[in-house]
Amino acid sequence: MEKKLPHIVVLGAGFGGLEFCKRMAHADARITVVDRQNHHLFQPLLYQVATAGLSAPDIAEPVRAILARNANTTVLLDEVLAVDLAARRVRLEQHTLSYDYLVLALGGVTNYFGHPEWAEFAPGLKSLDDALHIRRNVLLAFERAECAETEADRRRLTTIVVVGGGPTGVELAGAFAELTKVVLKKDFRRIDPAAARVVLLEAGPRLLAHLPPRLSANAARRLGDLGVEVRTGVPVRDIRRGEVELADGTTIPAANIIWAAGVAASPLTHQLGVELDRAGRVRVRPDLSVPGHPEVFAIGDLALVLDEAGRPVPGVSPAAMQMARHVAKLIQRELRGSTGEHGPDSRPAFRYWDKGTMATIGRSAAVAKIGALEVTGWPAWLAWLFVHLIFLIGFDNKLGVLLQWCYSYLTWKRGARIITGLSDVPAAANDARRVAPDDQHVAPLRADLREAA
Amino acid sequence: MEKKLPHIVVLGAGFGGLEFCKRMAHADARITVVDRQNHHLFQPLLYQVATAGLSAPDIAEPVRAILARNANTTVLLDEVLAVDLAARRVRLEQHTLSYDYLVLALGGVTNYFGHPEWAEFAPGLKSLDDALHIRRNVLLAFERAECAETEADRRRLTTIVVVGGGPTGVELAGAFAELTKVVLKKDFRRIDPAAARVVLLEAGPRLLAHLPPRLSANAARRLGDLGVEVRTGVPVRDIRRGEVELADGTTIPAANIIWAAGVAASPLTHQLGVELDRAGRVRVRPDLSVPGHPEVFAIGDLALVLDEAGRPVPGVSPAAMQMARHVAKLIQRELRGSTGEHGPDSRPAFRYWDKGTMATIGRSAAVAKIGALEVTGWPAWLAWLFVHLIFLIGFDNKLGVLLQWCYSYLTWKRGARIITGLSDVPAAANDARRVAPDDQHVAPLRADLREAA
Repeated sequence: MEKKLPHIVVLGAGFGGLEFCKRMAHADARITVVDRQNHHLFQPLLYQVATAGLSAPDIAEPVRAILARNANTTVLLDEVLAVDLAARRVRLEQHTLSYDYLVLALGGVTNYFGHPEWAEFAPGLKSLDDALHIRRNVLLAFERAECAETEADRRRLTTIVVVGGGPTGVELAGAFAELTKVVLKKDFRRIDPAAARVVLLEAGPRLLAHLPPRLSANAARRLGDLGVEVRTGVPVRDIRRGEVELADGTTIPAANIIWAAGVAASPLTHQLGVELDRAGRVRVRPDLSVPGHPEVFAIGDLALVLDEAGRPVPGVSPAAMQMARHVAKLIQRELRGSTGEHGPDSRPAFRYWDKGTMATIGRSAAVAKIGALEVTGWPAWLAWLFVHLIFLIGFDNKLGVLLQWCYSYLTWKRGARIITGLSDVPAAANDARRVAPDDQHVAPLRADLREAA
Repeated sequence: MEKKLPHIVVLGAGFGGLEFCKRMAHADARITVVDRQNHHLFQPLLYQVATAGLSAPDIAEPVRAILARNANTTVLLDEVLAVDLAARRVRLEQHTLSYDYLVLALGGVTNYFGHPEWAEFAPGLKSLDDALHIRRNVLLAFERAECAETEADRRRLTTIVVVGGGPTGVELAGAFAELTKVVLKKDFRRIDPAAARVVLLEAGPRLLAHLPPRLSANAARRLGDLGVEVRTGVPVRDIRRGEVELADGTTIPAANIIWAAGVAASPLTHQLGVELDRAGRVRVRPDLSVPGHPEVFAIGDLALVLDEAGRPVPGVSPAAMQMARHVAKLIQRELRGSTGEHGPDSRPAFRYWDKGTMATIGRSAAVAKIGALEVTGWPAWLAWLFVHLIFLIGFDNKLGVLLQWCYSYLTWKRGARIITGLSDVPAAANDARRVAPDDQHVAPLRADLREAA
């Protein structure tokens, strides 16, 4: 009698979900991976799309193309509605799937720390659509500034405020500074893009709080050299249309506000009925399984895992991939029925190997910490490039894609600055395109994010 | 006393408008070019974006970047509302411009021959947004087919009908055939994309009616080899959601219907109060000026110009560019005040130099007619590649862009198959994404096209 293959459902085709599928390519199991997007996104370079340095196709690939050769894996473009842990079923919009194992790899969403209403005025940066909207808004703001009637309007339209001094915020701020002062410099006649204001706000005492103070200071200094106004120690009190209000009472008029100050786990975790931390992450067991459900695992940004020093493993791509490999190995061991032990207590614990943290500052500098080694400036940027090259080779296994990306990046690829979708606004709301871009253009997207905070 | 520089307004930054600006780079005049998109589009390759062979940034560049060094030229992202020929003023959404010379280069729109209601179900291919929507719809249709419950649904979702047997239709049909039978072949598990149906409909007796019958037959045969069902001599009677009805009474159920059967001039021409042909094109004088208004010119798809044999000059890029050069030379001559003659009767007539017509059929064949020379198959495709290389070098003057494009084209660039904008559907209409893609997803765009027919 032929044994029925176990069914493993993977929710999410980000770094965690995809790495898991790749490691299970030859497993004796049937795998279904679900994502509501048709593409896998190289998130570390998302800020490049938002700042018109690279275009969306440069950093994303269709999931189907990546997994085309995985005969045991089916890809579904669908959205998760609910997970029934007791019945071992996942309800999607178009399907209901029963599973023998479930891997939760849905990633994170933008976290507004109790102010979901800010999402409308200050989009986050978690998806390609986020990045494309930010880019479109900024380019349109400069277009409108070219036609603006008053100096105050021109100032407001050419001011970009980035909230959050972590790696994402630092990278965005540096890239926006270069966009305005280098790339767009000659493109306009009535405004001077180089006079645009780029402001980086950080509530805490320094940028890149998870890196040593020396690197924070270096980053702040380099950003200053690029023309970014860095303001630390001043939390944001409120965000309204076209305006940021700081805790000290001052306001910054800005048509472009980007929120890079926090990430929470996908809202789905609240449904699971298990213990979560303040950001909604699942407090997984050492083997990465969900407490009480040894056949369910949570990895990546969805999971709260502590390293040997008791600190949370950061929500970065290498961590998600390491967790994915751990779970894949673990499941394969159980599928083979090794040694009869099957409970969660006999499984090996996940160990995070910190390969280092980096953040770029513009296109010729970075800060990096790898183990005890701290690097800044040009050498750090080369290290960043090297690490991403290795990543990309793994990403696609195609040297050619790599070269193409390098070429795009090094030549300030113009194609990344086109705006599409101007005619996509529904006829009834055709005016949306014509009002200040910080108005209605962003509003319809954010409903799903309001749940996140 | 300093003489005030004449103001030349150019409406449209397509091939005609942009070539004009380039030729006027050093003219003693002030030039303002207006387009409602921020990018210039390489239209001959638009079908590649629609069929997920290339991505949008591969074939478009920001107008500002192209004209950054033209110190006498200002670019405005704006939309034309009205032209007042008597007062020599153009009214845009955000500006009103007075002109000394006006160049109308607004191009064409999709022509539904009196059936504007078909636009909702069968989008045309004139802009990047058109191409991206077609691409998104087709890819989503295949996603839905993967999940479909019935064979009838699967068939309908994986059927692509292209209406119109001119070069655009032929190129689309061939490229869709390759997309389904080559590119997507391994990407799905429950459906076989190679079994998808691609149908090309032509009302007339043969494809590519403007080419000799031998080339038409060759194209039809090659398309057949690629698996395209070619049906000639049968006009379309009606188009409804998910269905095409032919004049012989048969219907083809298809979730993907693309209209490539006709182009009309931009609707603006109807406002001018001058004589137009049936497609709305301006019957320009031999010097390309608008009758009665020697300071106003119409070029490109907007103009009806007859060649020496009395046939209309085709609406192709080289024609638009030649017309632009003619007008630029003419205006520069008048700006210099040569020989005191200034009326339209003393101006040289435009002469069209037909450099040939080509159409690709898939990625390894084409048909081409250059003068009396007729070429088919692989040599024709190489000729097509060569001509487009020359074009692209002119397009951007960057060999690197060229190489990058070649690389993308020759390696079936995966990035071209990502779908973005799934989360862009307004919250109130969130279901739009979940119904069959031939439903609401296309509807909001088409209001502007209804005027065209």
